[in-house]
Amino acid sequence: MNLKDKIEDYPNFPKKGILFRDFSPILKDPSALSFVADEFSKYFHPKDIDIFAGIESRGFILASILASRYNKGMIMIRKAGKLPGKTTKLSYTIEYGKDTIEIQKDIIKEGEKVLICDDLLATGGTAKASAKLIEKVGGKIVGFAFIIELVDLNGMKGISKYNCKSLVKY
Amino acid sequence: MNLKDKIEDYPNFPKKGILFRDFSPILKDPSALSFVADEFSKYFHPKDIDIFAGIESRGFILASILASRYNKGMIMIRKAGKLPGKTTKLSYTIEYGKDTIEIQKDIIKEGEKVLICDDLLATGGTAKASAKLIEKVGGKIVGFAFIIELVDLNGMKGISKYNCKSLVKY
Repeated sequence: MNLKDKIEDYPNFPKKGILFRDFSPILKDPSALSFVADEFSKYFHPKDIDIFAGIESRGFILASILASRYNKGMIMIRKAGKLPGKTTKLSYTIEYGKDTIEIQKDIIKEGEKVLICDDLLATGGTAKASAKLIEKVGGKIVGFAFIIELVDLNGMKGISKYNCKSLVKY
Repeated sequence: MNLKDKIEDYPNFPKKGILFRDFSPILKDPSALSFVADEFSKYFHPKDIDIFAGIESRGFILASILASRYNKGMIMIRKAGKLPGKTTKLSYTIEYGKDTIEIQKDIIKEGEKVLICDDLLATGGTAKASAKLIEKVGGKIVGFAFIIELVDLNGMKGISKYNCKSLVKY
């Protein structure tokens, strides 16, 4: 299956100059969803993974689908202020300003093996921060799973020490 | 399995007077996640469902898990401004002001059968608006799946004409 046929391009969304790659048609199609899970399962072995972490909010979808497929659990990496209880935060710079992500402090046991999931890898700022955040609370990063990678934005550079897999490259 | 044992209570989150019921421990536990899918599969038959719709953002998780289990697709009901292309919006009143949700206009074919998913049913404002929004673009609502229901807030009232199922009641 050619997943690229199931990604729609929207120029100038969410703002002028950005070409938005939309994976909604993949989600809508059960055979494309199965194909996504199949492809990642060729690459990441169940014994190497304890938990799938999804980056808010589209990353929740891939993490949930892979968690179901692998029969593992999933956890949420959220924008700051949305998770209850004791949390750990991490701020990182983005194009204009900074962003903060957060995770529950005790959701990961020391040494648990985490595969981080997101729909798309662009500059990789959030991905890199997510890895740091999970390491900060004691998790061990297995790698990253992305459906789409925007190769020109060089996001893999910041996470190259991990095992990273993307299915569709632009 | 008693799912209630896997829900954590956090008083005064996100603001004073609110008791937050957190389903993160369910997500983290593969056997609890399977149990959730098992319970819904006793209630909703695969032949009655074409697509699972997840309400942003924790609803994406349940919709994805059920889509995987049933081998169906999933679609996103998002807060306004996040979906590209032609969309349909719907505004509804909340405690102080109004909220707007959005869906891609052509993501549902006329008459497709949609099961709407969210982690928690409170007053039901977003749930009711989601049903209206999906009907507006031609979908047929099969029903609603919630992990948690806050019974005192009477959210089922607004969606009682649909087939609704929640797994944990407070």
